[in-house]
Amino acid sequence: MGLRRKDLLGLQDLTREEIDLILDTAESMREIIDRPVKKVPTLRGKVIVNLFYEPSTRTRNSFELAAKYLSADVQSVAVAQSSVQKGETLLDTARNLEVMGADLVIMRHSEGGAPHFLARRLRAGVVNAGDGIHEHPTQGLLDLFTIRRRKGRLSGLKVAIVGDILHSRVARSNIWGLLKYGSEVWVAGPATLLPPGLEALGVHVTHDLDEALDGADVVNVLRIQLERQQKGLFPSVHEYARFWGITPQRLAACKEDVLVLHPGPMNRGVEITSEVADSHRAAILEQVTGGVAVRMAVLYLLLGGGGTGE
Amino acid sequence: MGLRRKDLLGLQDLTREEIDLILDTAESMREIIDRPVKKVPTLRGKVIVNLFYEPSTRTRNSFELAAKYLSADVQSVAVAQSSVQKGETLLDTARNLEVMGADLVIMRHSEGGAPHFLARRLRAGVVNAGDGIHEHPTQGLLDLFTIRRRKGRLSGLKVAIVGDILHSRVARSNIWGLLKYGSEVWVAGPATLLPPGLEALGVHVTHDLDEALDGADVVNVLRIQLERQQKGLFPSVHEYARFWGITPQRLAACKEDVLVLHPGPMNRGVEITSEVADSHRAAILEQVTGGVAVRMAVLYLLLGGGGTGE
Amino acid sequence: MGLRRKDLLGLQDLTREEIDLILDTAESMREIIDRPVKKVPTLRGKVIVNLFYEPSTRTRNSFELAAKYLSADVQSVAVAQSSVQKGETLLDTARNLEVMGADLVIMRHSEGGAPHFLARRLRAGVVNAGDGIHEHPTQGLLDLFTIRRRKGRLSGLKVAIVGDILHSRVARSNIWGLLKYGSEVWVAGPATLLPPGLEALGVHVTHDLDEALDGADVVNVLRIQLERQQKGLFPSVHEYARFWGITPQRLAACKEDVLVLHPGPMNRGVEITSEVADSHRAAILEQVTGGVAVRMAVLYLLLGGGGTGE
Repeated sequence: MGLRRKDLLGLQDLTREEIDLILDTAESMREIIDRPVKKVPTLRGKVIVNLFYEPSTRTRNSFELAAKYLSADVQSVAVAQSSVQKGETLLDTARNLEVMGADLVIMRHSEGGAPHFLARRLRAGVVNAGDGIHEHPTQGLLDLFTIRRRKGRLSGLKVAIVGDILHSRVARSNIWGLLKYGSEVWVAGPATLLPPGLEALGVHVTHDLDEALDGADVVNVLRIQLERQQKGLFPSVHEYARFWGITPQRLAACKEDVLVLHPGPMNRGVEITSEVADSHRAAILEQVTGGVAVRMAVLYLLLGGGGTGE
Repeated sequence: MGLRRKDLLGLQDLTREEIDLILDTAESMREIIDRPVKKVPTLRGKVIVNLFYEPSTRTRNSFELAAKYLSADVQSVAVAQSSVQKGETLLDTARNLEVMGADLVIMRHSEGGAPHFLARRLRAGVVNAGDGIHEHPTQGLLDLFTIRRRKGRLSGLKVAIVGDILHSRVARSNIWGLLKYGSEVWVAGPATLLPPGLEALGVHVTHDLDEALDGADVVNVLRIQLERQQKGLFPSVHEYARFWGITPQRLAACKEDVLVLHPGPMNRGVEITSEVADSHRAAILEQVTGGVAVRMAVLYLLLGGGGTGE
Repeated sequence: MGLRRKDLLGLQDLTREEIDLILDTAESMREIIDRPVKKVPTLRGKVIVNLFYEPSTRTRNSFELAAKYLSADVQSVAVAQSSVQKGETLLDTARNLEVMGADLVIMRHSEGGAPHFLARRLRAGVVNAGDGIHEHPTQGLLDLFTIRRRKGRLSGLKVAIVGDILHSRVARSNIWGLLKYGSEVWVAGPATLLPPGLEALGVHVTHDLDEALDGADVVNVLRIQLERQQKGLFPSVHEYARFWGITPQRLAACKEDVLVLHPGPMNRGVEITSEVADSHRAAILEQVTGGVAVRMAVLYLLLGGGGTGE
């Protein structure tokens, strides 16, 4: 079995069968997280390196815990202190980690394509933990995992992704994944935050939030980066909340049992109200647990799928 | 057995029986630290998260090593890199860690009461590792542990706490603990560094250092925060050392076998001279080892008291 | 067997027999790094602390992974967040770590002799991971390890060390080691970057790069610290590369099978061209793997040589 690939770079290049395999494996992993003893020896003696060129507590913690639950050793390289600042190339840094024993490099980088560059040059596996505005595949997978658990399927759904689509690798990974299953994807946001070209993929693009929400089964609410306001991409936090914030009133356009997702960290009262975030319609904490499960599945499948360890 | 509580928030709300249980358990844990193989499988598969909103190498290391000696997995969240800075609420940050699998959150925060706030809202246990000027219960417990080992008892002692009482959560936790055992607690310091209200608890408050030291069995010397000087709370380091520094001459007022404690890190030559700190009267390094033992006991008792792990 | 010493402070005070023992042990350790399960229980329950007063991702990662492969617990103390900044003495910081259970302190410090100072005062072992411009013994050992593997011997070789000799603890550790084996050591660099006194040890010092390279078996290319340029120690990066950079043309003066080493991180195109660095003559990545193996050997030999653990 296994994934027959050494890297996870994006949902764009995964087949539906591969995604199914990851999600099915994540279901088994999910059970481990609920056990009193959250530890299996599967990846004992494997070395996983977090190489993060952008800060991220949340994603890094999730990968680290996933690795620990599988008994792998994790090494986290903080960029601020690293040789990167000494002028070393990305490839030299990564090759050094590889020859120290790294079996898998989890990488976040501000440049789209950086993990692909590394993946072609390393024997070790590479997992993209976010590259620029390109992809964030484990976030996409955890969204699919959460939708499948709540809705029982990934096909035939109407999914609305709302907010800053332009800068969102989360949106891109979701789009690639959902389209493969034949769901209908709508994106909605301020005109300044919608990228060109999505229609060509079959995505419905609109500036009318209610149109996107109308009959939606799932609403994926993107985090608004407050620092973008200074660049004039949206007028004010207050206006953003008023026109694009997901409130109970707005959700009235959706189906009764609409599922609300958010990749976190949330700006409560801006892109989502607390009333929605804390309601039974939202699965925001389930996403976080699912994220650990999905990452356990990815580590497990990339590092040999059970043939190694013990 | 166990503590029948999921959180350790302060010495104020512990009973004397609970403190006895922690200190007795810490005695067993203390032995593990001296073994050639410092590792027992008791908390294997448990996840302990350090969530420190104020920097602390010393306390964090102590908790991390305590967790490792018990085979738990530890995850440390550095605030500088964390989502906190992205506007996420404290509760959302903590709930995220909980649903990733955290069994216990060790928390330091500049606001008094922050751990209590979390403890009421999380299923996971919460250990207060210092909240504002309120409490630092594991420091209080390690002081009690060290006193009990050296003096054989916690009752009927005269204990003088010297220095910046106003800003000291260490002083507060010591006071709550010592009063429960019926010891006599004296606090002494510059008038600007003494808080109101301690007399009502039964504490003896004085500006006369010699009065506090007279006949004392234990002197707990608080660290002076050099940055307070700029705020005019004491005139100069030199004058502080002269009027409040614990010297061999000053200790002449105490009992012959007086025990000197200091929570560290020490400003040698300011609040304590090296002659005192390095003498047989001081137990400053014993406090540090006791701190690991006490924290092992707390982790063990909060996480199920032996019924889990293996 | 074992090393019969608790500290590794420099190559100057090691005997040739001790170096042989470390390199032989490193050969066995090297095999563990290539295994599918990179983990042996040898140092289970031992605590190794990284106490780095200068930043270093590379060396710290190497020591951490070496410790993890041997199942030791590692605790890394980041100086920026540490009590160091609160005015605590080096000795108090180290003694605190010792009484928390540290069996070995790996230390990097900007002052030459700092690890020796600690070693005399701690019961725990001390490993020098670089002290000022004095020594960096595990780097020296990994260079010897790589030379021995490639050349089959450490005696009777001509070794040229090129670049900023003045500020290089790597050069110093190499010199001490190579001279013990009776190899001929040449150092070459700009006049401003050559320290006095090396001739007295038997080292050949020259400003003529070709003279140093003539007939060399090994060329150890030192990293140029770009920040030194501002201090006027060399004219420009461009000129440094032109006069001192190791190019394929320059290597023509060396033996056909010359071995090129570099301690990393490399400034490609400055002190070494990519053509040389990526050629079969260079063993720069082998050095990195050897570094982990040598550090495993050092940890193992200092912590009891097999009599402990299990």
